[in-house]
Amino acid sequence: MANVMRAVVVQGGQLRVESNYPVPEPGDGEVLVRVVRAGICDTDLQIVRGYMRFEGVLGHEFVGVAHSGEHAGKLVACEINCSCGRCDFCKGGLRNHCPERTVLGIAGHDGAFADYIAVPEMNLHPIPEGLHPEHAVFVEPLAAAFQIVRQTAIGPGTRCLVLGDGKLAYLVAQVLKLHQASVLVLGKHPAKLALFERRGIQAELLSQRRPRPEFDLAVECTGSPEGLATVLPLLRPRGTIVLKTTVADPISVDLAPVVIHELTLIGSRCGPFPPAIEALRSGAVEVETFIEAVYRLDAARAAFEHAARPGTRKILFAVDESVPSLLKVRGS
Amino acid sequence: MANVMRAVVVQGGQLRVESNYPVPEPGDGEVLVRVVRAGICDTDLQIVRGYMRFEGVLGHEFVGVAHSGEHAGKLVACEINCSCGRCDFCKGGLRNHCPERTVLGIAGHDGAFADYIAVPEMNLHPIPEGLHPEHAVFVEPLAAAFQIVRQTAIGPGTRCLVLGDGKLAYLVAQVLKLHQASVLVLGKHPAKLALFERRGIQAELLSQRRPRPEFDLAVECTGSPEGLATVLPLLRPRGTIVLKTTVADPISVDLAPVVIHELTLIGSRCGPFPPAIEALRSGAVEVETFIEAVYRLDAARAAFEHAARPGTRKILFAVDESVPSLLKVRGS
Repeated sequence: MANVMRAVVVQGGQLRVESNYPVPEPGDGEVLVRVVRAGICDTDLQIVRGYMRFEGVLGHEFVGVAHSGEHAGKLVACEINCSCGRCDFCKGGLRNHCPERTVLGIAGHDGAFADYIAVPEMNLHPIPEGLHPEHAVFVEPLAAAFQIVRQTAIGPGTRCLVLGDGKLAYLVAQVLKLHQASVLVLGKHPAKLALFERRGIQAELLSQRRPRPEFDLAVECTGSPEGLATVLPLLRPRGTIVLKTTVADPISVDLAPVVIHELTLIGSRCGPFPPAIEALRSGAVEVETFIEAVYRLDAARAAFEHAARPGTRKILFAVDESVPSLLKVRGS
Repeated sequence: MANVMRAVVVQGGQLRVESNYPVPEPGDGEVLVRVVRAGICDTDLQIVRGYMRFEGVLGHEFVGVAHSGEHAGKLVACEINCSCGRCDFCKGGLRNHCPERTVLGIAGHDGAFADYIAVPEMNLHPIPEGLHPEHAVFVEPLAAAFQIVRQTAIGPGTRCLVLGDGKLAYLVAQVLKLHQASVLVLGKHPAKLALFERRGIQAELLSQRRPRPEFDLAVECTGSPEGLATVLPLLRPRGTIVLKTTVADPISVDLAPVVIHELTLIGSRCGPFPPAIEALRSGAVEVETFIEAVYRLDAARAAFEHAARPGTRKILFAVDESVPSLLKVRGS
């Protein structure tokens, strides 16, 4: 194995593809994973704009083949929080909130837009046979969608609004439906809303919906600073808003409705991998519709430019091009 | 009884004392109450600045003597939400969220800075013998403090932060202590913080506290648009922030910590009167320390100017001056 590799590096707000980046040395409890596929998340776009002030190899949505350890030679997905295992949060079952943690491609740990990544072995989850790597890349964001049902009391009859018609919204809406909630998606892109409808999910143009306080729960996954202000008038009193959007800058919002209507806002981040893997394996959650394009890793700048266009679905990297892709792999 | 009375009216951002305001006619289910004492709330100051776009007689914290009905001739406190009694919210036990409601002195219903107010009889709660009207005025804001323990799981060992050292903070801190929580008050006014300490509540200068994520729950009762941003770094992951502040304008805040640390924000408004009345009757909650001054109703402009000065405690109106005051009643 060579000791240098390709890597997509962010530094000082600039993105560049390096071809001689050092292959990471696995630390204690870590294994090396050869990246097969990776996906561009809106958080990656925010990081390039300065969010988290991260510098290093980007990327946290990926699957790859473990080089050693229990899962050696197998395709694995990987949780992104690397925690200490010793603090009260880790011991109390809140590893994802370990104050000492690093986060793959987001905070203090190089990410997955590279040929190799070193990760804690305990973060790995094997991907079942027959699940295509380009579907399995969605495990990480889908786990984040499953986190919502762990944090709230969603069930049959819960009137749910999903604000946004992007990648995360597509996953969230399906997870809510799996839990028998009544789901409406409000978005800005007719073409994307049609994809929700095709999946049997009611979807409408936000601009054509008269705002009234009708929803028990809303998931804000617009990725936009205006999302919260848009969603507030749509909640019934005592309703719940799940916040998924993180943006680089402060937002301006009138929070008086939160107090007056005694709304609850819940921040929601990473979630459980096992139900996400099972939902993809069984086909309960569909993702292929939301793959827009697959790029070579060397074409990262073109891939990022594509991902940043409004209305774009998921952009993937075929890091290991020897694994066949569902779509034609694009260069620059 | 005369058919005109004194009233403190807000209109177009201006406050004026009228001496020939019509005495209200009680509607269906309403009774007339002769106001004895009323208190200026920070919400009143916000309303004068444009919050809720309310015009009419201000005032919602008060006690008075009912003129008719079950409590005729007795001193009563009064809930401020006047609900329809017929909608799903009213029938479901959420009268305070009735979409048809008016709110005394805040929305669609004249308030209590007047000799008389007409209110729904069902909103009245008798004040026990021996509880001074100038203490009983605190029933309404104290009920709002009790609302916090209805909305959250506060108990022995819960590490609570009260941000703010004002009137509401003084009530909230005492209610949290009653529920065996560990309580720290952070504020800006040494003289007021000393009043908390005198009551056995740990209180420190905000500027001298190193921000670290140590609290399970924080109650934001600064009344300031900066309160939320100040409190976010003080919460442990998965912690809860209770929002009490309503301000007239949008605030600018970076909500990324809410998502990253999966914090919960809960808006909290009006609360249950019975535990508030009992806590005042038994002396479990002390309020006299926080009465700054008592004004004649005619001196409303001076009273409002006084209430608006930073660091001021509760300003009361001795609407019925025939009832003796605990303090010397001030003119203008």
